[in-house]
Amino acid sequence: MSGQTPSKAHLHKPILSSKFPVGYAVGGSHCGVKKDASVNDLALVVSTTDAPASAAACFTRNAFKAAPVLVSQEVLEKNGGRARAIVVNSGCANAVTGTQGMKDAWAMLRETDKAVLSSKGGANPSTLVMSTGVIGQTLPIAKILDGIRASAGKLGSDFAAWEQAAKAFMTTDTFPKMVARTFTLGEVTYRMAGIAKGAGMIHPDMAPALPHATLLGCVVTDAAVAPKALQKALAYAVDRSFNSISVDGDMSTNDTIVALANGAAGGKELTAEDPAFPVFQEELKDFTVQLAQLVVRDGEGATKFVTVSVKNAPTYEDAHKIASKISTSALVKTALFGEDANWGRVLAATGSVPLSNGAAIDTTKVNVTFIPSDGTARLPLLVNGEPEKVDEERAKEILSLEDIEVEVDLGLGSQEAKYWTCDLSYDYVKINGDYRS
Amino acid sequence: MSGQTPSKAHLHKPILSSKFPVGYAVGGSHCGVKKDASVNDLALVVSTTDAPASAAACFTRNAFKAAPVLVSQEVLEKNGGRARAIVVNSGCANAVTGTQGMKDAWAMLRETDKAVLSSKGGANPSTLVMSTGVIGQTLPIAKILDGIRASAGKLGSDFAAWEQAAKAFMTTDTFPKMVARTFTLGEVTYRMAGIAKGAGMIHPDMAPALPHATLLGCVVTDAAVAPKALQKALAYAVDRSFNSISVDGDMSTNDTIVALANGAAGGKELTAEDPAFPVFQEELKDFTVQLAQLVVRDGEGATKFVTVSVKNAPTYEDAHKIASKISTSALVKTALFGEDANWGRVLAATGSVPLSNGAAIDTTKVNVTFIPSDGTARLPLLVNGEPEKVDEERAKEILSLEDIEVEVDLGLGSQEAKYWTCDLSYDYVKINGDYRS
Repeated sequence: MSGQTPSKAHLHKPILSSKFPVGYAVGGSHCGVKKDASVNDLALVVSTTDAPASAAACFTRNAFKAAPVLVSQEVLEKNGGRARAIVVNSGCANAVTGTQGMKDAWAMLRETDKAVLSSKGGANPSTLVMSTGVIGQTLPIAKILDGIRASAGKLGSDFAAWEQAAKAFMTTDTFPKMVARTFTLGEVTYRMAGIAKGAGMIHPDMAPALPHATLLGCVVTDAAVAPKALQKALAYAVDRSFNSISVDGDMSTNDTIVALANGAAGGKELTAEDPAFPVFQEELKDFTVQLAQLVVRDGEGATKFVTVSVKNAPTYEDAHKIASKISTSALVKTALFGEDANWGRVLAATGSVPLSNGAAIDTTKVNVTFIPSDGTARLPLLVNGEPEKVDEERAKEILSLEDIEVEVDLGLGSQEAKYWTCDLSYDYVKINGDYRS
Repeated sequence: MSGQTPSKAHLHKPILSSKFPVGYAVGGSHCGVKKDASVNDLALVVSTTDAPASAAACFTRNAFKAAPVLVSQEVLEKNGGRARAIVVNSGCANAVTGTQGMKDAWAMLRETDKAVLSSKGGANPSTLVMSTGVIGQTLPIAKILDGIRASAGKLGSDFAAWEQAAKAFMTTDTFPKMVARTFTLGEVTYRMAGIAKGAGMIHPDMAPALPHATLLGCVVTDAAVAPKALQKALAYAVDRSFNSISVDGDMSTNDTIVALANGAAGGKELTAEDPAFPVFQEELKDFTVQLAQLVVRDGEGATKFVTVSVKNAPTYEDAHKIASKISTSALVKTALFGEDANWGRVLAATGSVPLSNGAAIDTTKVNVTFIPSDGTARLPLLVNGEPEKVDEERAKEILSLEDIEVEVDLGLGSQEAKYWTCDLSYDYVKINGDYRS
């Protein structure tokens, strides 16, 4: 799990344009879920404000929801969308672990409550739990509980602390994924920071607001946002970010994105009716898109970062479905790995998706174009259903770039969706043919 | 396209339990679509009876139907389900080739009509056309028309002729796929022979009666079957055979299965209302399952032949959808390649499928079992939602076999579906990263 795959960290530095949000203490450490003592497997993210933070989450739609997903859902409901902390372990997903798994997830929650929140009081459980790793194995719970106690006293709020936390989220990831930025509502400037993990089993479908990975993520801000507004904005953002990425088309049992807003930076509490709400919602969306793209960049075995744009579809859902189908096509992904301008595979994937409301693709209106990421000219491949005489040298040039955009224009409507995916390489097979060893 | 992949032919001999159907003349030859002059790229299958044969077909549902698909559909409609011949080329799919592609497909049809059918008369076009290979390139039509003329005089009806025809269907296939058998209706014994091709872009969805590959196939019999009865039986058979296999989850623009029934063996014409019809329908289904399984055995890069059985689902469609999802999961397929008993990936795929009519999976009723193909004991992995303590040595033993069955029992109903798939290997990536070269 470590050591085999060369890290891509040198390509993708953490995106940090600001200080971290105030009122949070975080940390990451090794507690023993993973064998290698030099890698982190336990993270804590704690809001240090007196009152609990607003909390929202999107969870996997998989029928086999892991124990930490079920427990976190229950906590959010009981607390009316408020929480104080997030505890995360990597190395074991605590999924399909029956009754023992539920006990273990609750034990992680209670230990975190006790260790970091005792001074704040409050009878309700206040921690959200996330786990990622192998399915069907039970947690080494004693080690995790020891780790929570040991780690709780050593939290920080600087870059080093956030980096250790981000490292503890990692499984087959080759680099930690964190983003931080500032944004302004009215005259107040707020901060936002986030961590994500995921490199395989990435095709999230998280409810509410539709979704697909094991993908874990958390976004925290020091803005004050009402719980319902936070949930609404997160659902919108996740649908257009984490639910629009695919590494391998497999949906995990553990996918979870959590948001906390603790109001520590002051300002009035934002509601969904506030004129500033759409601004916050777009900020959150842009932020989660950045985080989600890091997951694709680190896709298992990936050598290419591919943007799939579907334009002029009858509905957003149609555009999203077609973009998803192209993004998950093994034939499209292997052609991209081979830097082969086999655009026929893009079309075959497009044509295999039934449109909603009985609409049908008009093949004479379809355009397919490669858009190079270096700012040079677009390369039309199919124009109004007729194949262009393609300059194969030029196509090869575009496909040799690390970043590639494939655009499909249906010419049927005005709706658009984007999807981000990667190629399918030898290394993908290597990594997943031997994941558990 | 040739030479790179070691042939699997030694593993899978043609399944031939009988003589070939009477009243057919077939052949295969090299006409020049492919560069290598030692490989066939043109096949003819001709019914030699005075009256045209009953004809039925299932075509891809892809919106970008290739020119030969559109032409063959039109011929079948115009002729009320009757045809005399099938012409097939490999090496170029004649798909997404605009108006030129339609002209070329019609030219293949007319040349075949002229070359092999002139003595039979009849004003209507009488040939069905199939093409397979690269998408988006136009046919070298002059070479193909020359080939049809040259080949028409050299057709035969013995094993050698059928084998040459089957070879001409091949693209990335490593061995020709043909099956022949006898069956009895009442007191008359009939013969059935079939050819299929396909190794990649295999996830057919052919209408009518739902379907998914480039997968081409033809089945011919000397029984007399009315056109409507033939279409009904073929739709039933294709849904449970070719529409229940997956190599890579990609649906082709060219998928076509054609059936001809020329009545040359005598007996009365079978209608859908005849008490013997269900017998014929089951015979045809079993026959197409054999052909379809050969495609999976030859799946691009495949090292395993995997049967996925979903039992006790609320509906057949639910069982079929879940079996399809498991069969197309990149994570399940790479784990099988790695002979890794990572059954959690089977569950994650199962749980990602929404059931019909608002039904939900009850995770406490789900059982997952590996069934070894050597007749030794089944290995339960998940029993009523609780993971078993798995004997990893035993699991490894089962997974090291070439044939593997994975059974998922939902415990929710009584419906069952089977799917056949293969593993995802380094060679799959190699073959498809460089298909066009």
